[in-house]
Amino acid sequence: MKTLWWAAECPEQPVLRMVDQTRLPAELVLIDCRGHRDVASAIREMRVRGAPAIGVAAAFGLALAAYASQATDSTRLAEELRAASVELRATRPTAVNLAWALDRVLGVLDRLSADSRLDVDDKPDVESIRRALLAEAQAISDEDEAMCREIGRHGAALIPPGARILTHCNAGALATVSYGTALGVIRAAHEAGKGIHVYVDETRPLLQGARLTAWELTREGIPFTLITDSMAGWLMHRGQIDLVVVGADRIAANGDVANKIGTYSVAVLAREHRLPFYVAAPSSTIDLTLGTGDEIPIEERQAEEVRSFGGRLVAPAEAPVANPAFDVTPSRYIRAIITESGVVREPFGAGLADVVARAGGQRRA
Amino acid sequence: MKTLWWAAECPEQPVLRMVDQTRLPAELVLIDCRGHRDVASAIREMRVRGAPAIGVAAAFGLALAAYASQATDSTRLAEELRAASVELRATRPTAVNLAWALDRVLGVLDRLSADSRLDVDDKPDVESIRRALLAEAQAISDEDEAMCREIGRHGAALIPPGARILTHCNAGALATVSYGTALGVIRAAHEAGKGIHVYVDETRPLLQGARLTAWELTREGIPFTLITDSMAGWLMHRGQIDLVVVGADRIAANGDVANKIGTYSVAVLAREHRLPFYVAAPSSTIDLTLGTGDEIPIEERQAEEVRSFGGRLVAPAEAPVANPAFDVTPSRYIRAIITESGVVREPFGAGLADVVARAGGQRRA
Repeated sequence: MKTLWWAAECPEQPVLRMVDQTRLPAELVLIDCRGHRDVASAIREMRVRGAPAIGVAAAFGLALAAYASQATDSTRLAEELRAASVELRATRPTAVNLAWALDRVLGVLDRLSADSRLDVDDKPDVESIRRALLAEAQAISDEDEAMCREIGRHGAALIPPGARILTHCNAGALATVSYGTALGVIRAAHEAGKGIHVYVDETRPLLQGARLTAWELTREGIPFTLITDSMAGWLMHRGQIDLVVVGADRIAANGDVANKIGTYSVAVLAREHRLPFYVAAPSSTIDLTLGTGDEIPIEERQAEEVRSFGGRLVAPAEAPVANPAFDVTPSRYIRAIITESGVVREPFGAGLADVVARAGGQRRA
Repeated sequence: MKTLWWAAECPEQPVLRMVDQTRLPAELVLIDCRGHRDVASAIREMRVRGAPAIGVAAAFGLALAAYASQATDSTRLAEELRAASVELRATRPTAVNLAWALDRVLGVLDRLSADSRLDVDDKPDVESIRRALLAEAQAISDEDEAMCREIGRHGAALIPPGARILTHCNAGALATVSYGTALGVIRAAHEAGKGIHVYVDETRPLLQGARLTAWELTREGIPFTLITDSMAGWLMHRGQIDLVVVGADRIAANGDVANKIGTYSVAVLAREHRLPFYVAAPSSTIDLTLGTGDEIPIEERQAEEVRSFGGRLVAPAEAPVANPAFDVTPSRYIRAIITESGVVREPFGAGLADVVARAGGQRRA
């Protein structure tokens, strides 16, 4: 099963169908988004989360906006779509895949509009815009799946037999369309019969490790042990962990990586124990416009996520809280970044630029 | 208010009254222990927790066993008390204060028994054993309060004005009879008008930071910010933390410190960011019989604590779990250990031995 997909049983009113990740692991619930605002809400409320998945969701969100529009004129439709893209872009600030996917779909719109400007009587019709946007969103979704498989293939080569692998948060099938990035590496190593064991950080505050990664690994029959975030260092000290693999929400040009809060601590602990720390991410996560991770915007989420869980308060109701949703791991802590085009090592700058160039070339080809 | 105290409104049936720490911060509930088995359950279920507090609870538990006994003969009573001490000692393995306090109370029993052996007709009566055991337990309790004040005094001298202090778990009034060890240092610095700010690790799995430390600081009006355990490293990286103070459950002769799981990670992160890492603990936490922390037994608790959050299941019900309740921080990560007799620095061996010798001397004096 995929994390999200375009469903058009009713061609007049297609929907973006997705797993509601806030309900896992207690129940597997699907929700239907009927317009871009439903998608924006789903992203904001983290019903869909994970950098690649929210990129794909946003791309389909723009396509939904095109299908849901009452516009009969392509100029009016283009205006609506640009407004919709602003709303979608504002949902979450850290993962660059969101902006990247929106820009790709808007690029299609721009090209259609530019072509039409050559001849004022030959404006693209509303229906062809809809089809072109949906085709681009679907291409992003298909490429995401293919990239995860390639990341898995490249990454599995780095995993020694019998490795005990720590991962943080969920960079799994649920963070992508399917298969996953960090969990893609883990899946591929497991499929290759390497006899791995996974240590899963529960990942407070929203417990994506306990709720999502543990759920995925249970379904796949991959051996694992769930731990609190505070235990990872101690397990490393006791020699129970061999390497770390995590995903990414944005990678700066120098290889600094924004990822779920707690990733930085894991990276420092890995270095203290001389363990390799790998980041697995598709080229869509690389942001060459930012020189270093210092420029990556870090989302601050509501205090309630820290003061409570599942609606149950665990701290004094008035307790002041900090809740940065992400942190930035400087590239000096990272052994390698595993992408769909291969494994990038220090110095990261040239390698990352090459990965991005190749991805652009493949799309144009 | 104290964490626990001997209550003898009904002199024939005294009780050990304590704050039920599993109910905080939602409600402040007192429970009465009527015999040593009630005390053993309260310790096992962490209704009372914190190394110094469980030592005092166990000492009062033995006194309760003496008062609750139906024995009319001192030999029979001594047998019952030794059996009770075995049950109390087995409740939790890591904090040495438990064994230390039991040994002190049993020492009183031994001395009474030895004296009596000089003359078979002059055995101590049951009532005098009860009174002697209660007096020793009360002395341990009184000394604990005094030691916390002294720890606070010595520790506050190390805290610069305006310091932003990270603490892990609860080494507060609730972990002792009152005032606290790490929180004793923080209280004393606050009382001295140093304008400090405390960052409180929530401390999964049982959330003693969110539930207990945040509650204590709220009541005292000491400014604080609650964070998840995974955020501490990132806050250090951003320059938001100046130093760390934690408590201890057992300190080996070489200065290695067992404390709540996650302490080791905090210590590694502190060193990476060149921040002082202080341990605050009374002499009763020092175990000179163990050369290094490798010999400290680490309690493994039930999986349910990790699979659930605030009583609510958050992971797949069958998820395999690791749940070490403590970890050991090697002394090389520790800037200083703050005791009631002063601040011990590297090399820790001689200083810790001196603290223990002084504590023994004071009791004999």
